Amino acid sequence: MARATPKQLVAEVLEGRVQGIARLISKAEAGDEDGQEALAEVFRHTGRAHIVGITGVPGSGKSTLVAALTRELRVSGKTVGIIAVDPTSPFSGGAILGDRIRMAEVAQDSGVFIRSMATHGALGGLARASLDAADVLDAAGFDIVLIETVGVGQDEVDIVRAAQTVVVISAPGLGDDIQAIKAGILEIADIHVVSKCDRSDANDTVRALRGMLKLEVALSDAPQWAPPVIRTSVPEDLGIDKLRLAIAKHRRHLESSGRMDARRRRIMETRILKTAEDMIRNRFENRRDGAVSGLLDRVLAHELNPYGAARELLTALKEEGTHEAA
Amino acid sequence: MARATPKQLVAEVLEGRVQGIARLISKAEAGDEDGQEALAEVFRHTGRAHIVGITGVPGSGKSTLVAALTRELRVSGKTVGIIAVDPTSPFSGGAILGDRIRMAEVAQDSGVFIRSMATHGALGGLARASLDAADVLDAAGFDIVLIETVGVGQDEVDIVRAAQTVVVISAPGLGDDIQAIKAGILEIADIHVVSKCDRSDANDTVRALRGMLKLEVALSDAPQWAPPVIRTSVPEDLGIDKLRLAIAKHRRHLESSGRMDARRRRIMETRILKTAEDMIRNRFENRRDGAVSGLLDRVLAHELNPYGAARELLTALKEEGTHEAA
Repeated sequence: MARATPKQLVAEVLEGRVQGIARLISKAEAGDEDGQEALAEVFRHTGRAHIVGITGVPGSGKSTLVAALTRELRVSGKTVGIIAVDPTSPFSGGAILGDRIRMAEVAQDSGVFIRSMATHGALGGLARASLDAADVLDAAGFDIVLIETVGVGQDEVDIVRAAQTVVVISAPGLGDDIQAIKAGILEIADIHVVSKCDRSDANDTVRALRGMLKLEVALSDAPQWAPPVIRTSVPEDLGIDKLRLAIAKHRRHLESSGRMDARRRRIMETRILKTAEDMIRNRFENRRDGAVSGLLDRVLAHELNPYGAARELLTALKEEGTHEAA
Repeated sequence: MARATPKQLVAEVLEGRVQGIARLISKAEAGDEDGQEALAEVFRHTGRAHIVGITGVPGSGKSTLVAALTRELRVSGKTVGIIAVDPTSPFSGGAILGDRIRMAEVAQDSGVFIRSMATHGALGGLARASLDAADVLDAAGFDIVLIETVGVGQDEVDIVRAAQTVVVISAPGLGDDIQAIKAGILEIADIHVVSKCDRSDANDTVRALRGMLKLEVALSDAPQWAPPVIRTSVPEDLGIDKLRLAIAKHRRHLESSGRMDARRRRIMETRILKTAEDMIRNRFENRRDGAVSGLLDRVLAHELNPYGAARELLTALKEEGTHEAA
């Protein structure tokens, strides 16, 4: 197939054509200049979709729940784009097999687009690329864009926070280490889900979660939105409809309370920062043999320290012509 | 206590005084300009310690193993500094209680310094701060600096890769989701540990790991260093001595093979990048009400896209005077 111009690519995305969507997301993932022009244009057509972040610790049943929620959303007539951020290493770049298999069923539906994102470079870019991919799905006309990440790791938590509605999944029967990690992400939830509620120990999880939330409410200024706790079980088809309704209700709340503007602002702050970081990283890698190599030599000889080197790097990068695509 | 000047603080660190060490690490964590002068000076006194990264998925018994390894290193006459990176959210900033309790025993020893690091800002800085903290412990004279992170998440994996020797822990009896995540970090290991080898299913874990490694070796150019697989059990005091010896052997290998230089270079690249990213983030946050607010308005109105905004941000930062501390 002939190489599409940025204009053609954008047109394909706006028409909702699967191939164009997949290609532009691949460009976002590759992070090359080539994709930026199309992504910048696509951005102008965003703002309609409801961007929902879904996170939970490993073993909380995220992918199973995302598949069930997607089916539920489809039944209610919504189209769904899914960005599954894979917490694999920069090296393997592979998708998580089990998750993808659970997804296979919904992936047959043309009202659903699923994309798995993983880092390919040595360092970073995952957050920027994932949020660009959400733009592509938004511009392509999907009603709901689900961004699924594991709830461990700074970048992963930043990604899911860059959603309008954040769903955090808890599950019964996880080990102590995992429970402790979970405690760290509870605070970013707009909606709590306790999954696997067919298990007899799920009540303990719900009780413990409610206890933590009560404490949180007591410590905070009375919030306008009290995050609900929703019990779900995918095999028993329990609570998935409630989750869909809670997600819709949260968006209405953001809009009617005037909080959507603040939320969009916070999201855009994250995106601009992540994009700026990514630009620095790319330029750094492109100049590895030139100016950067000299900087490294001096730091390794202890003539310069990392702070001084970072400042010199930023100064050097500024002297480059900036390619305008805005 | 009177406020120490940067010079006094550095002197305290170089003397190995606990209070000075703790204070300078707090400054690294806070990320303010104030700490940079002292950290830059401390950097000139680094390069002696063996920096060892230890990572594994949640539930792999990282902290238990780190505590046991620390005791073993102490018996062999080494002093040990520990940076435990907590994968909690930017909000809670808390340490993982269970881990800290397991550490309490070794923490009584004056040849050991333990510091838990967590993000305090809304976005990032953890990698830069953790690597600065490792500098402080190196300059303070600890023979071995252990950096412990969970093996999930881009930043966390970047941190542990910025060590001279990387130990990756696998454990029997973890769920599928966790196993899949583990697969992503195996490739960064210089040394593999299978923990909990008192369990009867540990043999399966060792076998599966060996199988994956054989595949990896077959696919790669014959490596000079074949990562060993070490079976450990803390309750049975199994393999901890072997782990200590393997860590020492890996450092000798790096030095005798001439690979240490390349490793140091890669580490320093990561540090400079993470420091540059952190500077941008800080300046961004400091200017939130001024130039940044204007940028955000334009992006939210779709007059500008995130790429254009990131470029403008980088350009705007250039016009700031750069505080020289190098």
